Amino acid sequence: MPGATAQTLRPFLWRARRMFPDREVVSRTHEGIHRYTYAEYADRVGQLANALDGAGVERGDRVGTFCWNHHRHYETYFAAPSMGGQLHTINPLLPDHHVQYIVENAADRIILVDPSLVEKLAGAYDEEAFASVEQFVVMGSEVPDTSLENVVDYESFIGDEDATYDWPDLPGDQPAGMCYTSGTTGKPKGVEYTQEMLWSHTMATLPEAGLDLRSSDVVMPVVPMFHVNAWGMPFSTTAAGAKHVYPGPSPSPADLASLIEEEGVTLTAGVPTVWLGLLEYLEENDADLSSLETIVIGGSAAPKSVIRRFDEEYDVDVLHAWGMTEMSPIGTVARLKPGMESLPAEERYDKQAKQGLLIPGLEMRVVGDGGEELPWDGEAFGELHVRGPWVTTEYFERPEATEEDFEDGWLKTGDVVTVDEEGYVKIVDRAKDVIKSGGEWISSVELENALMAHDGVAEATVVGVPHQRWQERPVAFVVPAASADEESLKTELVEMVKSEFPKWWAPDEVVFIEEVPKTATGKFDKKVLRNQYDDESLVEGKAPEDAAPDAND
Amino acid sequence: MPGATAQTLRPFLWRARRMFPDREVVSRTHEGIHRYTYAEYADRVGQLANALDGAGVERGDRVGTFCWNHHRHYETYFAAPSMGGQLHTINPLLPDHHVQYIVENAADRIILVDPSLVEKLAGAYDEEAFASVEQFVVMGSEVPDTSLENVVDYESFIGDEDATYDWPDLPGDQPAGMCYTSGTTGKPKGVEYTQEMLWSHTMATLPEAGLDLRSSDVVMPVVPMFHVNAWGMPFSTTAAGAKHVYPGPSPSPADLASLIEEEGVTLTAGVPTVWLGLLEYLEENDADLSSLETIVIGGSAAPKSVIRRFDEEYDVDVLHAWGMTEMSPIGTVARLKPGMESLPAEERYDKQAKQGLLIPGLEMRVVGDGGEELPWDGEAFGELHVRGPWVTTEYFERPEATEEDFEDGWLKTGDVVTVDEEGYVKIVDRAKDVIKSGGEWISSVELENALMAHDGVAEATVVGVPHQRWQERPVAFVVPAASADEESLKTELVEMVKSEFPKWWAPDEVVFIEEVPKTATGKFDKKVLRNQYDDESLVEGKAPEDAAPDAND
Repeated sequence: MPGATAQTLRPFLWRARRMFPDREVVSRTHEGIHRYTYAEYADRVGQLANALDGAGVERGDRVGTFCWNHHRHYETYFAAPSMGGQLHTINPLLPDHHVQYIVENAADRIILVDPSLVEKLAGAYDEEAFASVEQFVVMGSEVPDTSLENVVDYESFIGDEDATYDWPDLPGDQPAGMCYTSGTTGKPKGVEYTQEMLWSHTMATLPEAGLDLRSSDVVMPVVPMFHVNAWGMPFSTTAAGAKHVYPGPSPSPADLASLIEEEGVTLTAGVPTVWLGLLEYLEENDADLSSLETIVIGGSAAPKSVIRRFDEEYDVDVLHAWGMTEMSPIGTVARLKPGMESLPAEERYDKQAKQGLLIPGLEMRVVGDGGEELPWDGEAFGELHVRGPWVTTEYFERPEATEEDFEDGWLKTGDVVTVDEEGYVKIVDRAKDVIKSGGEWISSVELENALMAHDGVAEATVVGVPHQRWQERPVAFVVPAASADEESLKTELVEMVKSEFPKWWAPDEVVFIEEVPKTATGKFDKKVLRNQYDDESLVEGKAPEDAAPDAND
Repeated sequence: MPGATAQTLRPFLWRARRMFPDREVVSRTHEGIHRYTYAEYADRVGQLANALDGAGVERGDRVGTFCWNHHRHYETYFAAPSMGGQLHTINPLLPDHHVQYIVENAADRIILVDPSLVEKLAGAYDEEAFASVEQFVVMGSEVPDTSLENVVDYESFIGDEDATYDWPDLPGDQPAGMCYTSGTTGKPKGVEYTQEMLWSHTMATLPEAGLDLRSSDVVMPVVPMFHVNAWGMPFSTTAAGAKHVYPGPSPSPADLASLIEEEGVTLTAGVPTVWLGLLEYLEENDADLSSLETIVIGGSAAPKSVIRRFDEEYDVDVLHAWGMTEMSPIGTVARLKPGMESLPAEERYDKQAKQGLLIPGLEMRVVGDGGEELPWDGEAFGELHVRGPWVTTEYFERPEATEEDFEDGWLKTGDVVTVDEEGYVKIVDRAKDVIKSGGEWISSVELENALMAHDGVAEATVVGVPHQRWQERPVAFVVPAASADEESLKTELVEMVKSEFPKWWAPDEVVFIEEVPKTATGKFDKKVLRNQYDDESLVEGKAPEDAAPDAND
């Protein structure tokens, strides 16, 4: 068979060091701004690799990190995978029992931890779960008081090491990264990234159809580096030879505004709440955002109002992106097509508020309840399936979860979407929340948005409850506004839904409650309501005769 | 082992069809401009795949093409590889015996041939060499008179076929393309491109660090589609969702100017002579080149004067690129780094006249005569070695050639280069032409350029002849200008070289000749001179005592 050299991260580090030695890596730390060049960075990556060697890390061993976004964390991004290890970024916001499960499941040999997170890690420490961990390295130049044992500070750990490391020729399928999905239910599921998955994702996010990274860019990932490699940006920024800006632990909107202004950030990325916070800050404070061209928003849906405000008030493009831990993570970006720039602003924002176009190299399909592929008409909705070189085909040591979420090489994303004629994906619900009525699907999210727009409603959620004939029927759980009259509100809400959606989408019952149950992260916890109403009693006899469009076929 | 879906061309076709169905594919034909959309294109690709199936083409079979640049040729680019076959583009400019060798070596099952090339192919036809070829398909809607048998026209071949094809899941190492290098000596050597090599090259050429292709681009590959897949542009343009413009058979400068103007071409690509021809045409004729942003020049070195003229007179950027058949083919592009735009024009042109920066995903080294790696100082020169995911590691069925040209996974390019502190590669010679004097190298190309700049010289070439002490010493072969006095010219030339280069670079002898021997393609044929002067007699006793810089060490 003809062949070529394997796809690994090595050439990206090599290129940045040799061709862009003077470009900067900037990092906000507790001691102020830290700044060095790719040349210095690459030397320290070599030192770290030698230190990991010295600590006994071997091919395939996992190196855990428990850190915010800074230059030392970025050093682990290339050192651990390129020496043949596996970078395992642990989310420090997880509850202790999840941290324990993850460390035990991954069998990390070593964990690098931020000074400000040592206490949190020590709190999660459990002798059995952490049995594989031989060394803790604190990301700084001193070791704080801690109950952890075998602790060394990072600067001592790498200080005496040689800057040169003879990077091995690794196979493309060498596991190089690892991240756990933190689902709302069940144990976290591990996803491994091979060298070629990380290589593919990096190459795919560089062009216009991805993030459009250029050597002149100044890139600030606000998305945490423990969230799927900060969407791959530490790798892609390096491959582009661009400047890095890491915002450090818990950056405030003022910190972000100041970094943008001082460092000339051109592209930044994070979840919507970060940018809502920045907008709020900017209302009261002056900041020069003129260098900023693009904000990549992902993690959850970018509100149209945020897209509009950044465009109108700051001349900044919001690039809405969607992805998953299973996808390394980027799958779609809502970049406008040629000609769309001249659309009326609101139409542009509507396109940008969708999750966007699949980036080159991936394939997708939208699958209906019966397994049939659905048309791209902006209306039909079904579950999104994706596949491609940076989409995993399995979970780590979880055959039953793999069985559930993968099918013939496709990842079943669990997202229910429409796709318009132009190919723009829009997420309308999660598969577990969509209501399956007579073979057709009802979007719980769209109903909730409509209900919550009503003045008489403080909060509302919609859940499918079992129904003998229709499989499921929608029930609305509504927290009424203080002033509302419950009986008339109920009628109004049902009529409103009937006027805005197909009639059979109207909830068969409206239940008034005092509070919508929430998860630890503040999301609606529909599971609680589903468990409470797991039989037909609530909707028995209430469904319309045509509770599905093809009911009379 | 964790894994992901294989890297294949399939998603590129899928994406163009589904997300950019209305973008155009334009083709200049003998019957005028042909124009259709990606949607129509993809249907015909499906028809062609079904027709190839019907003709008995199976997984791994080779489909030969003998064609210029047009939409039907572009249809084979996706149909043959995506059904599991292997696209083998044959250079119709080769002598008959090379065509015979190539067809026999590749064992093509079928050959698609342009109407204007049928006679040439029939002339090369040899029953034994063509024994594997079961079918000839003429790229049009009729079959011309020909001595070839089993001939059908393309439109009849695909006309009745279904537009839908169930594209298989191919492994990444499936051979998908093939091209022969046409060296000046010996038999052509076959290079196979696997699906993942073509995928990697496509992804790598999309970003700024490659060709910077965007969905708004209008791309016209003038470089023939039989020259390493037209530098991959039919694939990359599809992946970007951009518009294609194919200039058809033997386009004149007027044809190119008209296509640029009429179709709004933004990026075009070809060898230097094409652009010299266009510049000449533009001196006498008006054309609106305002849409044109970039001309990619490769194949041989882009003259600085061409770079300057396109910038100053037409505001068009020349993007100098270098690659090889063995590299799918692109390796470097001379894109300016951030900040270089503000350099004085001549300095910019000097950078752009170099072969440029290695694109992300590849690695390179410069190796001296003793196997040592040389510094990047713009002075030291040695052979360029490259490796990476779209660089082959072998020749097809040619173990002895593989042995010669590859080393530990590196391709020895045969190009002798300097690399400057910024990482820009500059080719100074071919490895077989560089003169090895006392362990140091002398660039024959630089000496030739200096000699030919002298008024008394019509043509000159410099060849290394054997030398007992110094291994080789340079001898200049000079065709004097009509007016020159040979004896004084000889002294002048030697003194000139001594003043411009290290003294030991000066030729030990200047031989006046009537004409420099040329190859079939018009290049200097140094082999003839080397064979003629294969002993020391010409330079015996003439070398300086320090014919290498370290001679006195």
